[in-house]
Amino acid sequence: MRAVCVIGLGLIGGSVLRAATAAGRPCWGASTGEDAELARADGHEVLSTEEAVRRAAEQDALIVVATPLTSVRGVLRTIAWQAPEALLTDVVSVKDPVDAEVRALLPGARYAGGHPMAGTAAAGWAAGSAELFRGAPWAVVVEDGTTLAAWRAAAELALDCGAHVVVTSAGEHDAAVARISHLPHVFANVLAAVGADGGPLALSLAAGSFRDATRVAASEPELVRAMTEGNRVALLDAVDDALGRLGAARGSLASTGALKTTVDGGHAARGELERLGSGDWSARSVPLRSDRDLRKLRDLGARGGRVTALDEASATAELPGSG
Amino acid sequence: MRAVCVIGLGLIGGSVLRAATAAGRPCWGASTGEDAELARADGHEVLSTEEAVRRAAEQDALIVVATPLTSVRGVLRTIAWQAPEALLTDVVSVKDPVDAEVRALLPGARYAGGHPMAGTAAAGWAAGSAELFRGAPWAVVVEDGTTLAAWRAAAELALDCGAHVVVTSAGEHDAAVARISHLPHVFANVLAAVGADGGPLALSLAAGSFRDATRVAASEPELVRAMTEGNRVALLDAVDDALGRLGAARGSLASTGALKTTVDGGHAARGELERLGSGDWSARSVPLRSDRDLRKLRDLGARGGRVTALDEASATAELPGSG
Repeated sequence: MRAVCVIGLGLIGGSVLRAATAAGRPCWGASTGEDAELARADGHEVLSTEEAVRRAAEQDALIVVATPLTSVRGVLRTIAWQAPEALLTDVVSVKDPVDAEVRALLPGARYAGGHPMAGTAAAGWAAGSAELFRGAPWAVVVEDGTTLAAWRAAAELALDCGAHVVVTSAGEHDAAVARISHLPHVFANVLAAVGADGGPLALSLAAGSFRDATRVAASEPELVRAMTEGNRVALLDAVDDALGRLGAARGSLASTGALKTTVDGGHAARGELERLGSGDWSARSVPLRSDRDLRKLRDLGARGGRVTALDEASATAELPGSG
Repeated sequence: MRAVCVIGLGLIGGSVLRAATAAGRPCWGASTGEDAELARADGHEVLSTEEAVRRAAEQDALIVVATPLTSVRGVLRTIAWQAPEALLTDVVSVKDPVDAEVRALLPGARYAGGHPMAGTAAAGWAAGSAELFRGAPWAVVVEDGTTLAAWRAAAELALDCGAHVVVTSAGEHDAAVARISHLPHVFANVLAAVGADGGPLALSLAAGSFRDATRVAASEPELVRAMTEGNRVALLDAVDDALGRLGAARGSLASTGALKTTVDGGHAARGELERLGSGDWSARSVPLRSDRDLRKLRDLGARGGRVTALDEASATAELPGSG
């Protein structure tokens, strides 16, 4: 089994290190400060970034960049110096900016970007778990230059961590997560502030709907900013869509007093989400013989499909509903 | 123990009937259709509204109106006919409109409005539980004409159901719930629609933040409309506040690329919510000798306080933090 080198041992990186270790893969990490101390205390090998990357080059390990977006460039420079042809993935929450950095700094790397869709409002090694990704979607990017070998290494890590793989392009990923991850963070923050504007009475009456809807506002502000600000263009599109819909709701409520369009539309959309997760999937085998076969998986991803297993020559892909 | 007559046996009314029964109080309900059949099958006595109200008048039972806002007027007309001096409360999610209807149709009623802050996305008797209100806030309204006897009857029901009582005026209640209950419904619907606009890929990548934030979009659309449209004026204020904050976030992201104000503000607001629920409460005894003593409880409610027990002559009130 291919070794795994995780750079950054916060919530996500720390959970990858644990999950890959639990899957029986040789693993080491790189971190500093409290996360490094806690990971060592839990029995994991933690090196400096330079040492970790050098060893990865020696063993042709998969390097996983698991730092906030704002620290990615520095890590990639160390990799360019120690392991310019590295087998490389990352778990950063935006993919176009990381892809651009890798192309610029590491043109020889065998890279496929990744993004596990799991997390909690807590941060750091202590909040992580080998089970964090169990049953979660994990995006693995296919761009025009992505090789089968690089994509396979990233996808195998995701599957070993208990996730299923959603294949997508970097740009489509960023547009999608702006809507289902970054806008929810903006909404949670706006809603929390509007609630607190109502004073102690409003907060003392808050029940499940407010608590659930503002949960991610408890996340570390610097991480939320790195994530949302790093996806600026796609997030602006999503915010504009939201402003349009919220403005329409306001106009309808003020003029006719009705919220029918808003409520019926939201109810139908939530129904789509629930149907997608209801377990009615059709499976197929997709041959994987050349880099170009990855495009078929990307087409399936655009239709809501996912990869649940890989063998030497093919992927098992599932499509929702009748496919 | 005073008998309880619950009109409407959906999620909330059905849970009140179960909880009051579990507290040892004589109870009966009124409903039709499936809710009535299921409640009878569970061993509860279910009558027509007319019969239920007539019996309440005979026994001076507390009548609890637990229908959607759009059905309240019809129920109040039946009460006006059968029990014009009824001891009356309700569990409808807006309080000013119900208060106005009661004043108009039932000037002789001994009324204090109520609103338990608990629920699920599911509706109907089958979704209810005697434990639904355990640990939840339950608003009990004090207006200038509210009598101690009427308020006490409503508050005792809330306490018997396992809730704590938050004392407020009808208008302050409606402004508060617009922010922490009705706006979250609007946000959930808008967010669900923006997510679904991202197509199957976006929904297939959706994780906890999107699922939690859109959970209440699964609620029955007619109930959500009755609730939100029934609180139109206060909800417009809350939506305007949200539009202003979301527009400011958009402007900042587009111009400087930063979301610092939004993220830091939301994080601080969520922190207020968590501190309020952290269990650091100071208790005091508030004498209850006349109707005017209720104003003291309302002042405490405006400061985030709650009533946790009642005896013959006083209320036990708790204030958050150092009070």
